[in-house]
Amino acid sequence: MLTIDASGVYIIAATPFTDDGAVDTASLDRLIDFYLGHGITGVTVLGIMGEAPKLTHAESVALTREVVQRAKLPVVVGVSAPGFASMAALTKDVMDVGAGGVMIAPPFTLKTDDQIVNYYANAVEAIGRDVPFAIQDYPYASGVFMAPSVIRRIVQDHPSCAMVKHEEWPGLDKVTVLKNFMADGSMRRVSILCGNGGIFLPHELERGADGANTGYAYPEMLVQLVNLIKSDERTAAHDLFDRHLPLLRYEQQPGMGLAVRKYILKRRGAIASDAQRKPGTKLTKESIAEIEFLITRLERNT
Amino acid sequence: MLTIDASGVYIIAATPFTDDGAVDTASLDRLIDFYLGHGITGVTVLGIMGEAPKLTHAESVALTREVVQRAKLPVVVGVSAPGFASMAALTKDVMDVGAGGVMIAPPFTLKTDDQIVNYYANAVEAIGRDVPFAIQDYPYASGVFMAPSVIRRIVQDHPSCAMVKHEEWPGLDKVTVLKNFMADGSMRRVSILCGNGGIFLPHELERGADGANTGYAYPEMLVQLVNLIKSDERTAAHDLFDRHLPLLRYEQQPGMGLAVRKYILKRRGAIASDAQRKPGTKLTKESIAEIEFLITRLERNT
Amino acid sequence: MLTIDASGVYIIAATPFTDDGAVDTASLDRLIDFYLGHGITGVTVLGIMGEAPKLTHAESVALTREVVQRAKLPVVVGVSAPGFASMAALTKDVMDVGAGGVMIAPPFTLKTDDQIVNYYANAVEAIGRDVPFAIQDYPYASGVFMAPSVIRRIVQDHPSCAMVKHEEWPGLDKVTVLKNFMADGSMRRVSILCGNGGIFLPHELERGADGANTGYAYPEMLVQLVNLIKSDERTAAHDLFDRHLPLLRYEQQPGMGLAVRKYILKRRGAIASDAQRKPGTKLTKESIAEIEFLITRLERNT
Amino acid sequence: MLTIDASGVYIIAATPFTDDGAVDTASLDRLIDFYLGHGITGVTVLGIMGEAPKLTHAESVALTREVVQRAKLPVVVGVSAPGFASMAALTKDVMDVGAGGVMIAPPFTLKTDDQIVNYYANAVEAIGRDVPFAIQDYPYASGVFMAPSVIRRIVQDHPSCAMVKHEEWPGLDKVTVLKNFMADGSMRRVSILCGNGGIFLPHELERGADGANTGYAYPEMLVQLVNLIKSDERTAAHDLFDRHLPLLRYEQQPGMGLAVRKYILKRRGAIASDAQRKPGTKLTKESIAEIEFLITRLERNT
Repeated sequence: MLTIDASGVYIIAATPFTDDGAVDTASLDRLIDFYLGHGITGVTVLGIMGEAPKLTHAESVALTREVVQRAKLPVVVGVSAPGFASMAALTKDVMDVGAGGVMIAPPFTLKTDDQIVNYYANAVEAIGRDVPFAIQDYPYASGVFMAPSVIRRIVQDHPSCAMVKHEEWPGLDKVTVLKNFMADGSMRRVSILCGNGGIFLPHELERGADGANTGYAYPEMLVQLVNLIKSDERTAAHDLFDRHLPLLRYEQQPGMGLAVRKYILKRRGAIASDAQRKPGTKLTKESIAEIEFLITRLERNT
Repeated sequence: MLTIDASGVYIIAATPFTDDGAVDTASLDRLIDFYLGHGITGVTVLGIMGEAPKLTHAESVALTREVVQRAKLPVVVGVSAPGFASMAALTKDVMDVGAGGVMIAPPFTLKTDDQIVNYYANAVEAIGRDVPFAIQDYPYASGVFMAPSVIRRIVQDHPSCAMVKHEEWPGLDKVTVLKNFMADGSMRRVSILCGNGGIFLPHELERGADGANTGYAYPEMLVQLVNLIKSDERTAAHDLFDRHLPLLRYEQQPGMGLAVRKYILKRRGAIASDAQRKPGTKLTKESIAEIEFLITRLERNT
Repeated sequence: MLTIDASGVYIIAATPFTDDGAVDTASLDRLIDFYLGHGITGVTVLGIMGEAPKLTHAESVALTREVVQRAKLPVVVGVSAPGFASMAALTKDVMDVGAGGVMIAPPFTLKTDDQIVNYYANAVEAIGRDVPFAIQDYPYASGVFMAPSVIRRIVQDHPSCAMVKHEEWPGLDKVTVLKNFMADGSMRRVSILCGNGGIFLPHELERGADGANTGYAYPEMLVQLVNLIKSDERTAAHDLFDRHLPLLRYEQQPGMGLAVRKYILKRRGAIASDAQRKPGTKLTKESIAEIEFLITRLERNT
Repeated sequence: MLTIDASGVYIIAATPFTDDGAVDTASLDRLIDFYLGHGITGVTVLGIMGEAPKLTHAESVALTREVVQRAKLPVVVGVSAPGFASMAALTKDVMDVGAGGVMIAPPFTLKTDDQIVNYYANAVEAIGRDVPFAIQDYPYASGVFMAPSVIRRIVQDHPSCAMVKHEEWPGLDKVTVLKNFMADGSMRRVSILCGNGGIFLPHELERGADGANTGYAYPEMLVQLVNLIKSDERTAAHDLFDRHLPLLRYEQQPGMGLAVRKYILKRRGAIASDAQRKPGTKLTKESIAEIEFLITRLERNT
């Protein structure tokens, strides 16, 4: 299950499709094995980068079941939805097939602090008070900005809140503020795992975050980085990170990051096709050339 | 089926719930009978005011089936969704139970004209080119502003586009521009039905709109108004409308309109409970007093 | 000066221009006399409907001086600006020529409750703690939604806050909440004047608002309405309001309301030209015909 | 003057203040000398990172005059404003003191393609058809997304459009599309200079952009990078860039980037104080430690 002690790398799993748009279960197994081989500690499926809205309910449940059985690690499922009926239905069904928890982002219609807090209260009531959940704090995608005090209110109101997926930008000081809330006792401990495509990951870990919750196509870097920071090998950690930064930054471009990520995952043999289910983004030949150039430089430097 | 000749009043149907949140099928039948008794020509279910996101897929399909069988009129189903998988799945299932077409609003992530046009191309591919659809042009809810030329591109690209639900504000000149497109041959004919809670309905009809697509709790006014305008009884039309305007304006308040509407529908005997499925808005005692006051004045003046 | 006892009608003054775009001072005088003749109690200049951003600093100050000298009533000046330098500079200069206070709307970049509260703290520091100011609470134009508790924090933090210009929609219950804050002693008294083009004015007054802060082209209706409500002549108040509602609603359309308002003000002889300084909206012949129709009906019913 | 052949590095100049908030002219001179010493080819003042909205009109003009006289290079002045009156007034006054052109971002209220095109038409009329201007295409700050075809329409409509400041993200393919427009003759040549804090600069230059328009606190890197790419020394270019990327990425964080930049500029002796005029962002001690760490690593690797 997802607990407040979640740490390490909860990989944001891509959803592999065949070229004609079917979920590619063989590739899904291969991808999970690839992630496992690099030392991940958990999996998040059906996030933004998992093409969640393109899957039907039945496909979402089937995919979760497959990942749960293959990974034998906590699996967190993105269940954000415009209404609580589908959120509750999906939560029930994925928990039934063994998910460890769910992740909920606020809808863009929320405006005031109270509205956000109230939304999570309704969501928790809808999914059930016993289902561990993560707050997805990703204002650039959701349009909803949560002050640290708002996160604290949600955490304090709901014992089932186990994790904050942190991806506000700038957000380093927000990690520090949340850790200070835990230190001064005004907020109970929850896990803080960081997204943002990993672009600030070493600093976030040094600020006290518990790990990564992103899907960079070289997960071994994420895993090693977390370990190096935990072992206080700061120079080695940053040397490692800096070698990857040019490609990681390229992969993190909003609106085309998934195409880059799937291209690399395919190139590395983790999935059979980099197809996105429609509507997807296609890489131009110029982009592909840039990715190849960056990979060449990365591998030369490794 | 929904056709380009849709006219009259396509009522935006409320979804009746029992006090404990179940879909109230007996009330649904009663409500449809109420609408039919007042002369509607079509029904739109699962719009914003139908609490669509609070229903599961199965409930949505069951509700559509019930309305189709009861109303024996064209039934348009709101199928807007964050992804095409659920949009396509819902469309298929509601068309299978006899829906006459679907209504699609653009997601708030769309920015440029081309992105909007492209979105509808993808949507049409997802739902099937043979399914009649309405464009929901409601920028204050969707955040997406469609220039008349964008609507024209969508209409021209897709023969299955049968209707524009017009509810931009201000939008009277937009009706005129769209009608001029039809007159000058640059856009084929589609039906224009108007929403906006009906607050500009007489003018919209005088500008050439084909009817109403809203859910005011006195549907007889909408029906009579359309008929009076079509019969060129302008003074009688406006006299009728103006008597209703204070209440209609009150019902049209974003964020609480549905609570007002269900309160009146219950008061008029059309539904058993004015409960909204959670999360809903509750009327304060001050609001209820205001509604009662406005109803008293309306009925005195009728 | 603007005080916490402001009541009655603080008219949102239009800014008259000649057809070639110069500020028309003769018309400005005539317009102020027109407003005075109808019994207003204050004037707000350089609001959204005063075309504020189209005036230079020097023109803004000159216009304020003229209105102050002519009206001999409290004059509130809209000083919202993307930066505090111009806000402070304009405030200083308009206060020097006799303005009674300023009105400040929050910029759309603000997201969390704390950011809004902090913005007003910075604004007050910029304009000076001795300058009476009104909070403009107009989320549909500003994009910033202020919970009642946020307004309370601003009011409590700043003794110079004298007024809330209320124009959230729906907002009737917000008036009640703010009045309850005053009643229970958790917020000191400030004046609440209501905008929203007046479309909910009778109800807002009945909820405890102190008056109107809008610019409907028939200010005599606003003045009479406030007086009738204060005298508990409820039926007469609503009868009066309902006669005006069709036109008032037409004038309130976002994006074209000012063109309607100036057209009527010119028609009534209050200004020489209905020109807006560029970029402005022009009425189509269809819109003009609709306004004339509504005026004819209004005057027939009066 | 700003021309369509602008290339190299048009530095986005910071505005130095003393600790008590006055414009620090001595530091401004020193800063300009610092930039000149590193080989810039132009200067942009009063951009977002120049704290433009915090300066009064008079300060803006004085600052421009000082930079023009000191730099003896084309100086582009940000004149974006909520209204055309202040935009026109500022443009006139800065052109009078020798500015080479102005930069205009669209206001967040614009929605459709036509509205954006129309806005620039009005802006050009306001500032005068003889004033060279740059389109600032920065959707993450402005909220306005301009399709390449919209930029083309603006460029074709207005001979005085000399430059596009490109900072959409992802935007590499947009550079390619714009260059293809120039190649196929459907759009005349304009200069494309890139912002985005430089985070994609090598790729943007390889896609055909003419240079940089950003303000990284190590301008020598920007200048050398442009030169290396132009000389086809691709490996050296990327080696240089990659060494700076960790710090450049840190400086580019929205909401705190300016604080980082000024901190480094002060540390490098280019300005006397890193104070921002109120309201500004202060670096926490944790952030300062991170910056120092990144600088140490950068300088070790240089």
